[in-house]
Amino acid sequence: MSKNFNVILKSKIVNLQSLLYMNQSFIKQEKIRFQHVDYAGIVFYPRFLEMLNCLVEDWFEEALDRPFSKMHETNGIPTVDLKVQFKKAARLGAVLTKKLWVKHLGGASIVCGFSFEDEQENTCLEGEVTLVNVAFNEDRNDIKAAPFNEEMKMKISKYII
Amino acid sequence: MSKNFNVILKSKIVNLQSLLYMNQSFIKQEKIRFQHVDYAGIVFYPRFLEMLNCLVEDWFEEALDRPFSKMHETNGIPTVDLKVQFKKAARLGAVLTKKLWVKHLGGASIVCGFSFEDEQENTCLEGEVTLVNVAFNEDRNDIKAAPFNEEMKMKISKYII
Amino acid sequence: MSKNFNVILKSKIVNLQSLLYMNQSFIKQEKIRFQHVDYAGIVFYPRFLEMLNCLVEDWFEEALDRPFSKMHETNGIPTVDLKVQFKKAARLGAVLTKKLWVKHLGGASIVCGFSFEDEQENTCLEGEVTLVNVAFNEDRNDIKAAPFNEEMKMKISKYII
Amino acid sequence: MSKNFNVILKSKIVNLQSLLYMNQSFIKQEKIRFQHVDYAGIVFYPRFLEMLNCLVEDWFEEALDRPFSKMHETNGIPTVDLKVQFKKAARLGAVLTKKLWVKHLGGASIVCGFSFEDEQENTCLEGEVTLVNVAFNEDRNDIKAAPFNEEMKMKISKYII
Repeated sequence: MSKNFNVILKSKIVNLQSLLYMNQSFIKQEKIRFQHVDYAGIVFYPRFLEMLNCLVEDWFEEALDRPFSKMHETNGIPTVDLKVQFKKAARLGAVLTKKLWVKHLGGASIVCGFSFEDEQENTCLEGEVTLVNVAFNEDRNDIKAAPFNEEMKMKISKYII
Repeated sequence: MSKNFNVILKSKIVNLQSLLYMNQSFIKQEKIRFQHVDYAGIVFYPRFLEMLNCLVEDWFEEALDRPFSKMHETNGIPTVDLKVQFKKAARLGAVLTKKLWVKHLGGASIVCGFSFEDEQENTCLEGEVTLVNVAFNEDRNDIKAAPFNEEMKMKISKYII
Repeated sequence: MSKNFNVILKSKIVNLQSLLYMNQSFIKQEKIRFQHVDYAGIVFYPRFLEMLNCLVEDWFEEALDRPFSKMHETNGIPTVDLKVQFKKAARLGAVLTKKLWVKHLGGASIVCGFSFEDEQENTCLEGEVTLVNVAFNEDRNDIKAAPFNEEMKMKISKYII
Repeated sequence: MSKNFNVILKSKIVNLQSLLYMNQSFIKQEKIRFQHVDYAGIVFYPRFLEMLNCLVEDWFEEALDRPFSKMHETNGIPTVDLKVQFKKAARLGAVLTKKLWVKHLGGASIVCGFSFEDEQENTCLEGEVTLVNVAFNEDRNDIKAAPFNEEMKMKISKYII
């Protein structure tokens, strides 16, 4: 069997493995803490967006092998667009299930869908967020969009729904 | 001149005064603090939404005569929908001009437009936020939508653009 | 064997069990998130105090059977005194081990010691915090100190070091 | 009159001017916002420390001519020790008067006293905080203590009480 055929075969197997994990959401849980709630005892909405940022952070570290602690010396993924519908208040002590998936993968940007559900599977919030891959210049005082490489694109694409 | 006519006249004058101040934005400034910025030295986006909440808070207190400190014993105005485009990073020390106006006034809800501009009049972010007027039940563990009264509607409508 | 003797025996066993778990710290871990760090890439110190509050919150829920979600309708445990030495910066991605123990148990107050250590067992911060048990009045607009009951005291005292 | 004498005279005048402003506190006001308060409607204590950080930030910019926006590219002043007594709850809408002064000026560190008072001049909190002047290394991944220069020491010393 030629070396070339082997490479093709290996690549096919990788693709098959990828297929097994296609079309999935990235899922994490987070408990509503005292520091999240307001005077009415419900989550103050900017805290929900901190929770969303944690979800993206976990996705990059656990699923895309690109932990923020490494990435943020030279790169970032700022949020450029955000749409959220807040549907049901979440109270102190509730454990929310946070889901993230990819709606569109561009050259240097990703549009992600997300939803947060409570223990009774009510949707507390849902929406979409657009992230752009950027690189810092040397002095870390300016940024510009930088395309994702092929490996990164393959990892991200497993979460396209 | 009849008493009735006087009342009508007074009401006309009030309406005229209102007209003078129609179609305006509510405007406040806020300085970017150390606590707002992230590892890249730019505002972490959930902090922008705290700044937006402060803008709504100031608008209710200064323009609508309904300070949160009074309102939040019996009522609230939770955010039910939020759309934001983040257009330009804001850095430590920048002074942003925050503008809010009304795009649609419903029975118990308001759709507000907003924009934050830096000192060079670049738009850092803009978007729209939908607020719903709610009343707590007696035990403060549930809420329901409550229509704005006429006085409140009149005050809000001055900011319709 | 008399019923009375049985009760005494059972009570002795409970006391022995308690002794086994005496003089312990309550321990939790927390990962340093993007939202915790400042422009220098190290934890902004008010975020450390949010982490301390989470530690107290977990201790009340998991060890003292008094979850904040239940307690905060009628009671609270405000912090009245805080001393912290910040000894070593903690960076994005680090996992800290947070320890809490009781230095003094008063009638309506507790003095707790705490320390946060990084993965190399360096102490990032340590200090002590005094909490007071309070009850709200009916309108939830005032509080007064309220003694811990005997059951609560027993649970707390297991953490005296 | 010799040029030398002129210089001495000028220096004396500067010293006299400095004396006029000796032994003062640096004072700012801050309003309690919705985002500062907890489920009980009182300030969540880590928010008080954000307000303390803002006070230090304003002091450096307005009184010491060393704005954080300039300083934080190469230097920082991390907090290494903090002692706070929380004496009275502060509620939504209250305007606090924040005072800062210098208790001890070391080579590369300052011990500051602080107090926050409400409109009735009740002390809500008071304490002391120790700041250390540090310089980043070139890669911005490590810091070391750096002595204050003479000009900075002179500016700081006006706030010694």
